[in-house]
Amino acid sequence: MPHRFTYRVRFRECDPMGIVFHTHYLDWFEYARTEALRELGLPYIVIQDSGTTLPVVDLAVKYHESARYDDLIIIETRPLLSESKLRLTCSYRILRQADLRLLVTGHVTLCFIENGRTRPVPAPILLQQALGAGNA
Amino acid sequence: MPHRFTYRVRFRECDPMGIVFHTHYLDWFEYARTEALRELGLPYIVIQDSGTTLPVVDLAVKYHESARYDDLIIIETRPLLSESKLRLTCSYRILRQADLRLLVTGHVTLCFIENGRTRPVPAPILLQQALGAGNA
Amino acid sequence: MPHRFTYRVRFRECDPMGIVFHTHYLDWFEYARTEALRELGLPYIVIQDSGTTLPVVDLAVKYHESARYDDLIIIETRPLLSESKLRLTCSYRILRQADLRLLVTGHVTLCFIENGRTRPVPAPILLQQALGAGNA
Amino acid sequence: MPHRFTYRVRFRECDPMGIVFHTHYLDWFEYARTEALRELGLPYIVIQDSGTTLPVVDLAVKYHESARYDDLIIIETRPLLSESKLRLTCSYRILRQADLRLLVTGHVTLCFIENGRTRPVPAPILLQQALGAGNA
Repeated sequence: MPHRFTYRVRFRECDPMGIVFHTHYLDWFEYARTEALRELGLPYIVIQDSGTTLPVVDLAVKYHESARYDDLIIIETRPLLSESKLRLTCSYRILRQADLRLLVTGHVTLCFIENGRTRPVPAPILLQQALGAGNA
Repeated sequence: MPHRFTYRVRFRECDPMGIVFHTHYLDWFEYARTEALRELGLPYIVIQDSGTTLPVVDLAVKYHESARYDDLIIIETRPLLSESKLRLTCSYRILRQADLRLLVTGHVTLCFIENGRTRPVPAPILLQQALGAGNA
Repeated sequence: MPHRFTYRVRFRECDPMGIVFHTHYLDWFEYARTEALRELGLPYIVIQDSGTTLPVVDLAVKYHESARYDDLIIIETRPLLSESKLRLTCSYRILRQADLRLLVTGHVTLCFIENGRTRPVPAPILLQQALGAGNA
Repeated sequence: MPHRFTYRVRFRECDPMGIVFHTHYLDWFEYARTEALRELGLPYIVIQDSGTTLPVVDLAVKYHESARYDDLIIIETRPLLSESKLRLTCSYRILRQADLRLLVTGHVTLCFIENGRTRPVPAPILLQQALGAGNA
């Protein structure tokens, strides 16, 4: 079961074509990721305050249909830890709530960096446990 | 030869990790794309005013190293029309000007929509000609 | 009684000082304004679709304390139509939910433009009625 | 003489009304402020790296006419230190380059905070000297 986050499209996110400018879907991925981690019991701010940050390694997005101003949309997040525990990949689907049309699909992959270091480390144990539960 | 666009990283683009928040590189892709089309003699605003818009179909980004506040960066754009002329793919490399380190690579694919219609059409002839020259 | 809108501070909104970059509070004013109009029974999208847009005429903001990443904040909106009905001024207070500290105060004034014209017109009657009820 | 910064309006900054969304002018104020300080010989990053940050205290903006996609605009900045040296107020005018129409006026006031402290301090001596020269 993916995590579901509902969001209202804002006027500032829409462009002269009357549709959401394409980079904002990436912002929404981040909002949904944050809420998915919170629901798993490990808010990103807790991870960060314990000295680990999660820079983005890569991402990819496919745009199927456009969201429009004031649309309510649903962002589905499926977080998955790599077998090495070195990478967290969140897969996304964005749907319009009114008609459940699929608007956007994509993924974002993050790694784990401890403060003051540059080489990635495995996911914090608490996150491994939280995601283990989430993925079970 | 790619088109080269130089850009100064802004404070509002940097996050609490002290690095550029990952979605802003996508904004820079758009700035560079706009200037690449202008240099080819066909500014995006001219295409748009003639009744064709270019929604994004898909994109992918790899993050190698982080840009930081006040860095001067170089965004290299290589635009390429698909054989069907239905899609324009811009390939990107982002480098830090000071040390020419490779920060980000990626691509953005766009299609062509005429106002009031929903099915993609081939690139406007003027753009085919401009890109033919650019790709020659 | 002001309209109250609760919002979660996003990572992309925070800068290298670890605080919200100052322009984002203005974005939140817009989110809160949109929801205040919706609660008054006249969503902005309905006004817009009936042919009236609301460009911003002026604004002012005072920053008292900083919001930080993942803070829950409350945005209070008090919309007031000018006696001439030509201008809508929304007064704002932003508070941190956890301790109710006052973070930001300000106002945004908008006018009413009918599509295809440039001179401002009085507020649509439905909005006058909605705000009359709201201000009573 | 004000400092002058030329800027190209980006597609992502324009809204469904076809004009620049009102908060982006504030972003441009920051770009222009950064370049004004650089030209005075004291880049903001140098101030920041020496341990002083400049949070925004208040701002106000009047919108006279709208910038549109792909417009070249000029942002004029006049920085002025208060007599107490505790505040830096930048006054702005934004003009469209093509016809020199006045689009936006405003100001942003900043104070000086040393790292690890919360009470404002006077402007760093180097900035006092740079602005003395700039204001002379």
